[in-house]
Amino acid sequence: MTQIERVDVSLEKGLLDAFDKLISTQGYESRSEAIRDLIRQQLSSDRLRDDKAEAVAAVVLVYDHHATAIMERLTELQHSHFLKTISSLHVHLDHHDCLEVIVLRGKVGEINRMGEKLISIKGVKLGRVNLLANEGL
Amino acid sequence: MTQIERVDVSLEKGLLDAFDKLISTQGYESRSEAIRDLIRQQLSSDRLRDDKAEAVAAVVLVYDHHATAIMERLTELQHSHFLKTISSLHVHLDHHDCLEVIVLRGKVGEINRMGEKLISIKGVKLGRVNLLANEGL
Amino acid sequence: MTQIERVDVSLEKGLLDAFDKLISTQGYESRSEAIRDLIRQQLSSDRLRDDKAEAVAAVVLVYDHHATAIMERLTELQHSHFLKTISSLHVHLDHHDCLEVIVLRGKVGEINRMGEKLISIKGVKLGRVNLLANEGL
Amino acid sequence: MTQIERVDVSLEKGLLDAFDKLISTQGYESRSEAIRDLIRQQLSSDRLRDDKAEAVAAVVLVYDHHATAIMERLTELQHSHFLKTISSLHVHLDHHDCLEVIVLRGKVGEINRMGEKLISIKGVKLGRVNLLANEGL
Repeated sequence: MTQIERVDVSLEKGLLDAFDKLISTQGYESRSEAIRDLIRQQLSSDRLRDDKAEAVAAVVLVYDHHATAIMERLTELQHSHFLKTISSLHVHLDHHDCLEVIVLRGKVGEINRMGEKLISIKGVKLGRVNLLANEGL
Repeated sequence: MTQIERVDVSLEKGLLDAFDKLISTQGYESRSEAIRDLIRQQLSSDRLRDDKAEAVAAVVLVYDHHATAIMERLTELQHSHFLKTISSLHVHLDHHDCLEVIVLRGKVGEINRMGEKLISIKGVKLGRVNLLANEGL
Repeated sequence: MTQIERVDVSLEKGLLDAFDKLISTQGYESRSEAIRDLIRQQLSSDRLRDDKAEAVAAVVLVYDHHATAIMERLTELQHSHFLKTISSLHVHLDHHDCLEVIVLRGKVGEINRMGEKLISIKGVKLGRVNLLANEGL
Repeated sequence: MTQIERVDVSLEKGLLDAFDKLISTQGYESRSEAIRDLIRQQLSSDRLRDDKAEAVAAVVLVYDHHATAIMERLTELQHSHFLKTISSLHVHLDHHDCLEVIVLRGKVGEINRMGEKLISIKGVKLGRVNLLANEGL
């Protein structure tokens, strides 16, 4: 069972009113939940500065599937790191372009290097590495 | 057939040497490809400032699947915008947490609002909206 | 006198322990102060999405002062928006390069456009626009 | 004298047209200058990932000058690192708030730690560390 703690935060009325308005627009049902999310994001971005930290990543690529070398290298790159690739998703965007999401697990530094390699392949038009610290999220 | 143009860029030797070294580390096979990627990223981030621009998005969520309300609201949110959800991917990370990637199509402003709603659901621990401009990538 | 409100936040022990450790490293003396800062940053980044919001900006430029056209255009650009330039700071970095910080006040959209104009001047090597929402900080 | 090299970039007509339109809006007078800026930014952000790299930073703070401890700690923090503080700029924003820009020189990791310390001081409402790689800009 998860132990819950209570923390008392004091803040200016104006600041609180503005925060309440923002989180209501965003769809939050409670201040606690909104503040927990801020804290988690802060912790996550702190951990991800460490190249050796364990993380999960969702690498998002858009590429032209007519460029023949890509799919081969995508497969090869995934297999040369096969312990880390958990799953992937492929979407045909239009006649030319595909979107591929590759979910990986590994160390921050290695994930970033693999992401760079994928993004630099000729025919890969856009790429983004989403790192999520996966310890004590 | 795509028409190819040639552009002549003049730059300082030191800058070029540093760039060559960086892109070789990143895995690029040619300067043209690396420069094209920089240009595409610049164009994409410019377009995505416009709330009305068409975009493709990969929304990445990590959530606790024990929080019962989530999956129901995820489904509901996707269906209330069903024209835009193209595909999704679900990964079990551990006993508690799932990672979900939802690929959407729509206007930048609408995608951001939907992303905020998903991220604010209780039990959703981390969320990221990856916007990719999808016109003339 | 500023009215202070108290908010009760409940969160998992593990999350709280990690947060306490992080903010102690960062130098915070209380959780309240750290959480207030997270809230302020969130509110600020939300406001700055609106092109019409009032903001203060610190524009940071590095440029080669041998490129003769720059200083003239810097002056001109500042004067054509003279109501907004509050102050500026000039630092000689080395034989070639200067760093200039220009503090401005105005609407988010206008500040961004002015920042782009400054950054695009030949000889300006790097530029960054720091926007800070200035209402109810 | 700086040696200039010429690089030939081939790219699709549609991509070039969109780029020409963007950089004209931004105020660039030549494609070469716009591409050089993209390359410099890419190199700079790559270098700044290394905690040991030399950098120049402009730390931007907004703080309430009624909070008495701040100015004292600002001075102290600057002097405990006095070799690195090059210059600073102080602006009265309104009855409560000041904006301070501190220009520093040092290693990326040290600058980030100092920035965190400044931002965490009670009364400091917003802070931003602008790192600029200062070698071979």
